[in-house]
Amino acid sequence: MLLNRLKEIVGDNNVSNSASDICCYSSDASQVKGRPEYVVRPHNSEQVSKIVKLASENEIPVVARGAASGLAGGAVPVLGGIVLDMSGMDEIIDIDIDNLQVTIGPGVVHSRLNETLKPHGFFFPPDPGSTAMCTLAGLIANNGSGMRSVKYGTTKRYVLDLEVVLADGSIIRTGSRTLKMASGYDLTSLMVGSEGTLGIITEAVLRIHPLPRTRLVILLSFDSAEKAGGAVVRILSSGTIPSACEILDSTTIRALKSYDPSLDIPDAGAILMVEVDGSEGAVSEASEMVKKVCEGIANDIRAARDEEESDRIWAARRIVGAAISRLDPLRNRVYVGEDVGVPIKKIPEMIENVHRISDEVEIPIMIYGHIGDGNLHTGMSIDMLSEEEWDKLHRAADLIYRKAIELGGTVSAEHGIGGARSNYMELEHPTSLPVMSLIKKALDPKGILNPGKLGVDK
Amino acid sequence: MLLNRLKEIVGDNNVSNSASDICCYSSDASQVKGRPEYVVRPHNSEQVSKIVKLASENEIPVVARGAASGLAGGAVPVLGGIVLDMSGMDEIIDIDIDNLQVTIGPGVVHSRLNETLKPHGFFFPPDPGSTAMCTLAGLIANNGSGMRSVKYGTTKRYVLDLEVVLADGSIIRTGSRTLKMASGYDLTSLMVGSEGTLGIITEAVLRIHPLPRTRLVILLSFDSAEKAGGAVVRILSSGTIPSACEILDSTTIRALKSYDPSLDIPDAGAILMVEVDGSEGAVSEASEMVKKVCEGIANDIRAARDEEESDRIWAARRIVGAAISRLDPLRNRVYVGEDVGVPIKKIPEMIENVHRISDEVEIPIMIYGHIGDGNLHTGMSIDMLSEEEWDKLHRAADLIYRKAIELGGTVSAEHGIGGARSNYMELEHPTSLPVMSLIKKALDPKGILNPGKLGVDK
Repeated sequence: MLLNRLKEIVGDNNVSNSASDICCYSSDASQVKGRPEYVVRPHNSEQVSKIVKLASENEIPVVARGAASGLAGGAVPVLGGIVLDMSGMDEIIDIDIDNLQVTIGPGVVHSRLNETLKPHGFFFPPDPGSTAMCTLAGLIANNGSGMRSVKYGTTKRYVLDLEVVLADGSIIRTGSRTLKMASGYDLTSLMVGSEGTLGIITEAVLRIHPLPRTRLVILLSFDSAEKAGGAVVRILSSGTIPSACEILDSTTIRALKSYDPSLDIPDAGAILMVEVDGSEGAVSEASEMVKKVCEGIANDIRAARDEEESDRIWAARRIVGAAISRLDPLRNRVYVGEDVGVPIKKIPEMIENVHRISDEVEIPIMIYGHIGDGNLHTGMSIDMLSEEEWDKLHRAADLIYRKAIELGGTVSAEHGIGGARSNYMELEHPTSLPVMSLIKKALDPKGILNPGKLGVDK
Repeated sequence: MLLNRLKEIVGDNNVSNSASDICCYSSDASQVKGRPEYVVRPHNSEQVSKIVKLASENEIPVVARGAASGLAGGAVPVLGGIVLDMSGMDEIIDIDIDNLQVTIGPGVVHSRLNETLKPHGFFFPPDPGSTAMCTLAGLIANNGSGMRSVKYGTTKRYVLDLEVVLADGSIIRTGSRTLKMASGYDLTSLMVGSEGTLGIITEAVLRIHPLPRTRLVILLSFDSAEKAGGAVVRILSSGTIPSACEILDSTTIRALKSYDPSLDIPDAGAILMVEVDGSEGAVSEASEMVKKVCEGIANDIRAARDEEESDRIWAARRIVGAAISRLDPLRNRVYVGEDVGVPIKKIPEMIENVHRISDEVEIPIMIYGHIGDGNLHTGMSIDMLSEEEWDKLHRAADLIYRKAIELGGTVSAEHGIGGARSNYMELEHPTSLPVMSLIKKALDPKGILNPGKLGVDK
């Protein structure tokens, strides 16, 4: 019945309830699982609207999904229903350099947008690690960012206007093509980061930014990750805002070196990779400032000679995710507790605590990530056949989440809450979670949009 | 009765219903008027909470007010009730350079924050013309900005966390002290720009930014404002984002010269004042780029020799508001239609239309403002004793608002909607105004928070 009505909307080939499709659409890159009843591939906003109306009439869940590269289960239908595969709506609709903006379909892959913008001398600054696969609407729905957010901010800063299908199937525009406005509630920012629980993004107008003229990476080594954390505080409070500021702790360095012994990175308690960008003059002034304020704390400071050397350093950073598995070939990485954020000043304390938790729980934990805005990624890998190891893993993640909240931080700086972290929402947002629930109830009274996520529909 | 209960909360001296106070609190800098029944001066969040609870029980309006420098009636109690004068809550609670943030009471005056931050080498970038009087919570409630938003963005970008008293008197925190998060709905951005209709801001945590090392102003003159608008498009699409980009049209130039004949600004159809900031190297590169792309369109291009000359140019810009009255001493400036924003590419067309409207309605209209992000201020002055002139004025404003919306723009880029522009909300936001109303109803079911504003409670 419902199957037929879905087929009427999107055509026979774009609806499936085959066992293989149901299986493929039951997970993302997290541990969250949930089987949909139908997989539907819409190709325009009107189809999305009709599907949501149908779901509303039948009171069954609708979950939008991009590339499913998410690390918190945001795109997983934990209560069943319809999964909307938005990847077919992947048109770059308009590139409007004169207005400093682009209009895109929800399914456009992140790297494709930046490749398209490059010849114009512009870029879309948020730069998630999943750039080669993640869709822009997925990035928007999670307010993702990446290593350059320390200077350029998160996705939210670049979303000017969204077309959104609401829970009743109505289609709205949330913003405007003007670069600034003071005209009513900021529904655009409300939708950004709402993980498909308030509406389904069917089009986005994004602000773009000129590409910096040049970039330079400075590599600094330290006795300990805590000392590196202290250096970050010094760099930022000196008035220099780097375009990236990444940390690798000793466990991460060891993993990298065992993955590729030829990598030219120093042995150290921790490494900072600090990038500065802008005009030649600005870059050389900023790199001098970074060196100056880190003298005496860093054991070694080395600026890349040119962009090529900078690229080589970033290449090493990019293989961290893959390298983790080399620490012990019998173990697999599991993404939990992997994305906490704390106020900058609390970074050394957070790092110290992760090391303590690692010792206590007896799981090796790598620390790396976007330390420049307080966002620490942790990497834990376990023997997935051992129940005991799973218990340890969840205990470690729980301790990491609680410590981040205790330090005034967040359980997710950029990956999102989804189903994986929804149990911590009350602890992190004791006074405002009820307000989020009120908004959810007002906009989605039947609770059909991505239910079971964010802790807003409990 | 209510008077006594209010006195119990804030003390006898902090409540008034005297005729003089009622009169003083019946207006702001706009034409919107409304008499409160009580003026109350709270001094902490608990007092605000108790007052709002009392108002909720009695179902009477509560309107928060900072300096009442607003230009749209946001702080005017159009349906009576209680005006909360927040200016007494003016403590700079914490300056935390290491975390790149400050914590402030709602009544802190904008310029005071920046004076306090200057010795640390930091600043809070939004820079409204009313810096010397406006309060920070007023700025936040309107998502105000100013001339540097072309590079630094609006207030929204800098608000990390708010303490807000909701319509039921509960006190919530909306955000976090981390520099980024992907953890639940962005209630902070929802509150920014909501003009006190969803909650009353009682504390704010603001991100701060390093002061640029140097600034330089370039003065460009053009045959017409339309040509100047075209130059702005060229500058921005060249990849140079100035720290300010202001326009003065010929009427404005005439007003300035008659106000102060010694002002060293060229006679022209229009002037652009373009500021670039950053390191010495970056500033010189950017100013060369501005000159290069404007060659052939601008009649004259002159870069200030030093910061002192830059300051002199800005001094001329700052007296525009006062100078308008010199066009004709029998006329007074009235703020309506004064703050439209359009997509950058539409600037020349908007300017052309304002000139046409000026001719059609037979009122001289100055054009100046933050053209770099499409925000045009218009200045109209009339003989306030003539009913006919008032009619012309409102007709001109109406035509300006409608044209801005037609061009994909907004009726307010930075001053807010308040009571003055609420009639245009449906036209500007045909699909999303009902969603704003749903949120208003969910968070303020009795409609006591600043009713009659933004068109959300119609």
